[in-house]
Amino acid sequence: MKNVLVVGAGQLGLMMACSAARLGVSVDRIDHVTGEILPGTSQKRLPAAGDDFSTQYDVITAELEHLLGNPLVEKLQERPNWLNPTAMDRLPARDSQKTLLDDIGVATSPWRRINGLNDLESAFETVGEDLVVKTIRDGYDGKGQWVVSAGHPAEFSDEAFGRIIAEKKIAFDREVSIVGARFSDGECYCLPLAENFHDEGMLRYTIAPAVCDKPLEHQARQMFEAVTRELGYTGVLAIECFDVDGQLIVNEIAPRVHNSGHWSQSGSTVSQFDLHLLSITGLSCPPPSVTRPTLMLNLIGCEWNPDWCELPDIQMWWYGKSYRENRKLGHINISADSPHQLIQIAGNLQSSFDTLHQQMLTRALNRLTEIQ
Amino acid sequence: MKNVLVVGAGQLGLMMACSAARLGVSVDRIDHVTGEILPGTSQKRLPAAGDDFSTQYDVITAELEHLLGNPLVEKLQERPNWLNPTAMDRLPARDSQKTLLDDIGVATSPWRRINGLNDLESAFETVGEDLVVKTIRDGYDGKGQWVVSAGHPAEFSDEAFGRIIAEKKIAFDREVSIVGARFSDGECYCLPLAENFHDEGMLRYTIAPAVCDKPLEHQARQMFEAVTRELGYTGVLAIECFDVDGQLIVNEIAPRVHNSGHWSQSGSTVSQFDLHLLSITGLSCPPPSVTRPTLMLNLIGCEWNPDWCELPDIQMWWYGKSYRENRKLGHINISADSPHQLIQIAGNLQSSFDTLHQQMLTRALNRLTEIQ
Repeated sequence: MKNVLVVGAGQLGLMMACSAARLGVSVDRIDHVTGEILPGTSQKRLPAAGDDFSTQYDVITAELEHLLGNPLVEKLQERPNWLNPTAMDRLPARDSQKTLLDDIGVATSPWRRINGLNDLESAFETVGEDLVVKTIRDGYDGKGQWVVSAGHPAEFSDEAFGRIIAEKKIAFDREVSIVGARFSDGECYCLPLAENFHDEGMLRYTIAPAVCDKPLEHQARQMFEAVTRELGYTGVLAIECFDVDGQLIVNEIAPRVHNSGHWSQSGSTVSQFDLHLLSITGLSCPPPSVTRPTLMLNLIGCEWNPDWCELPDIQMWWYGKSYRENRKLGHINISADSPHQLIQIAGNLQSSFDTLHQQMLTRALNRLTEIQ
Repeated sequence: MKNVLVVGAGQLGLMMACSAARLGVSVDRIDHVTGEILPGTSQKRLPAAGDDFSTQYDVITAELEHLLGNPLVEKLQERPNWLNPTAMDRLPARDSQKTLLDDIGVATSPWRRINGLNDLESAFETVGEDLVVKTIRDGYDGKGQWVVSAGHPAEFSDEAFGRIIAEKKIAFDREVSIVGARFSDGECYCLPLAENFHDEGMLRYTIAPAVCDKPLEHQARQMFEAVTRELGYTGVLAIECFDVDGQLIVNEIAPRVHNSGHWSQSGSTVSQFDLHLLSITGLSCPPPSVTRPTLMLNLIGCEWNPDWCELPDIQMWWYGKSYRENRKLGHINISADSPHQLIQIAGNLQSSFDTLHQQMLTRALNRLTEIQ
């Protein structure tokens, strides 16, 4: 039995542990802040046993990438079983992620480092009149991002300079993502493109597979292969893109399983969690294929409702986390035999959710109807 | 978050813990021999914390029922959170299980307690010429069972008398089982009848749903409701039956999730593990319905083969247990859009297994073809 350690105590590691139990792989999770071990799917917290506890694992992977300066991770990443050191070094910083993309010729929005007010001013001239300023480190779920426009003086403290980049704000038709796995032999298996909708920086729902033509799918797969090859990557990685007139522009890359891949738990022969575990433990699998069109709806900042258990035709994941505003607390996968049936099922769910989630469902329904 | 303790450290509790993680229910398992706690899906073993550790759980359920005289369970079963005390008392002993069935008028093969050689001799006269002698306690997977026939003097030690029953050997057409859940409000949701094949006393494969007419299904559901109502039962329970000319005769009842219900992980909208957790934590669910015809093949006494990961169209569960002859180590669920496709997929798997499992697959294929 292979032993895997997942850095992070959140839902991504939890779902990995679920897949692992089926595959006969042992997973422990480690809270990177407290150093406590959460065994398997459990929320029980144990002290890590001994300074060299990490040697007992065949692979150490992570469910999050913003780990710079974390003392525990600094120790773990010195170990030979630390997975994807290059990716975990280069991808979490936006400047080095952007440089990587530029270096290998994968499209991403023009950008520059902002070390002072001058840089910002010249960025308006050379990059674009509308910019998204992003912190180089630790931005996620829309945190650490500001849209600024030429002529509207943006206020950044001196402290911010050197820690931010500015990139051209892209007027996109839609957001899509590709989630796939690279195996140790270099073979890549990707899930089909999924279409995502973000609001206030957070992913609200995913429609999978995205309706798209072959060239777009091909472009995404080529991006995936180029990025993972360059990084010598093993495991699941996600690339979020803007679709602009049928051309993909990379928004950001996550070296891990990804929220926009959760639909694969219900709609694919192989889920992203299976893909990750199989690839990082040196195993293989058949190429994943879509079994059912699926709508994934994130449950964000809402109280758990026992009535949800009675909803037909959905698969609910509730992460068992405590309530916090804007916190991702669960998701539902709605799968159907056809896009038409998917619309019907999703429509029937409307009354079971609060206003915010009703709005998101309505939006997803409109989009499903549009692309049907 | 509800806290559930599962007595037993085997695969049934493991699969329960997997379901639990998705539903936001916390599951610990306890090795009833050592008293160690296995948190969630983990194989990590922790000492139980304090004499009154069991008070921290909302419900204590079990993945096995042969627990008489187990000191740990004797303590647990005094607790108000011990689930189904009546069933856990009456069902594990064959004589009281048989008495229960006789009392509520549910068909089971004629039987009598065997307290001495005289009883056996008179059983041949009054019960049948071919008898199955079974130990009252601790028989499972064909252990503790002997077929004896009039005229062929069976040898039982004096010690055996008082601990065995003899029942009429049933010439059955096939074996079927019904697995269902009774909820706290008395509502019962049953999975459809499944057809089982045993060899050397062990379940080898299950075909679900079983091909059967409505009266048979109705009969099974009535049996299920009668048994669970009599026991005031909550949770999943399984009834194994012989089908004799379209009449069901109960073989045995298990007060737990059951090997013959594993197919529901792949072929039902709600699995038996979800059903159990939802019902015992006071929740509900939509009535389960079959999504895909499924063949479940047990993997018994065989070494794990990494090539299995590459098999398409199956879902494999590998329990991570060490090898032992005749030990159940995993199972595969083969699901398809149609019975015809199921035959094709199962046929393609033949070469991936050892002789024993090939034989079982061949047998299942023949049966699938016969009933198609």
